Amino acid sequence: MEKRILGLDPGLATLGFGTIICNSSQAQQRDTTVDMLDFGVISTAADTEMGHRLRTLYEDLHTLIEDLQPDLVAIEKLFFYRMGNTILVAQARGVIMLVLAQHNLPYLEFTPAQIKQALTGYGNAEKCEVQQAVARELNLNYIPRPDDAADALAVALTALFQY
Amino acid sequence: MEKRILGLDPGLATLGFGTIICNSSQAQQRDTTVDMLDFGVISTAADTEMGHRLRTLYEDLHTLIEDLQPDLVAIEKLFFYRMGNTILVAQARGVIMLVLAQHNLPYLEFTPAQIKQALTGYGNAEKCEVQQAVARELNLNYIPRPDDAADALAVALTALFQY
Repeated sequence: MEKRILGLDPGLATLGFGTIICNSSQAQQRDTTVDMLDFGVISTAADTEMGHRLRTLYEDLHTLIEDLQPDLVAIEKLFFYRMGNTILVAQARGVIMLVLAQHNLPYLEFTPAQIKQALTGYGNAEKCEVQQAVARELNLNYIPRPDDAADALAVALTALFQY
Repeated sequence: MEKRILGLDPGLATLGFGTIICNSSQAQQRDTTVDMLDFGVISTAADTEMGHRLRTLYEDLHTLIEDLQPDLVAIEKLFFYRMGNTILVAQARGVIMLVLAQHNLPYLEFTPAQIKQALTGYGNAEKCEVQQAVARELNLNYIPRPDDAADALAVALTALFQY
């Protein structure tokens, strides 16, 4: 049985995405294999108008989902870090969640600590340790770039490991 | 010349809206008359899934704009008040700004203090004073209800007075 999980690292300037394909024989759970399908970012220019940026995000994410046909979406949970930035990210996140609802796509949310725990075994892991774990799990001989795309693959793998 | 201004008081549980029509003779600015076209709220149920609520907001706001055909939108600026709530409101606001961009609608943003100042002459006015000013300016013999709808008419009037 094949399942596609789309991982998203939400942002307004940069929305990271990464898709993994999991194949499992029905007989044995441990026969599951996982491969990277693709990864990248949707970027919007900081000097363009907010509504225009959200519209770019909306249209590009629709196209991405139509192309990739995921079965499940995994998304990094939003935390407060800087006041102004949090509002911008939350506005982008509202558009992302709208698009997922329009495609009737189920999604799971994970905190950064849950992602680190799932990938490395401890919740305080460094960013580079998480990225190395992503490469190892997906049999890549490189670290996916930019960071937002690697983070998106990490949250997709977290969904796979937990469910 | 007729202009329609749609005021919005953004929220996830309740999005207040209010539309005013301004008629001005080209000869004299003071010949401007203003009337209330309609007001109300778009509500989403707290016990339904976030994506579903954002989708309701998206679809209802599209319908509203198609019905009312505003020339300009005035929207209350988002401030931090409570942590969790701010993220919810910002997510809803992202969807609202997406819809405005999809209709190529220009919008103006005002802080609560700017709205109070424009309606009553001072930035620390009480809510009821603002509501009475809304009724007076629009020649209504009642206070529009609920509060979110009255607030939406107030921000629409602010846009009129300032521009």
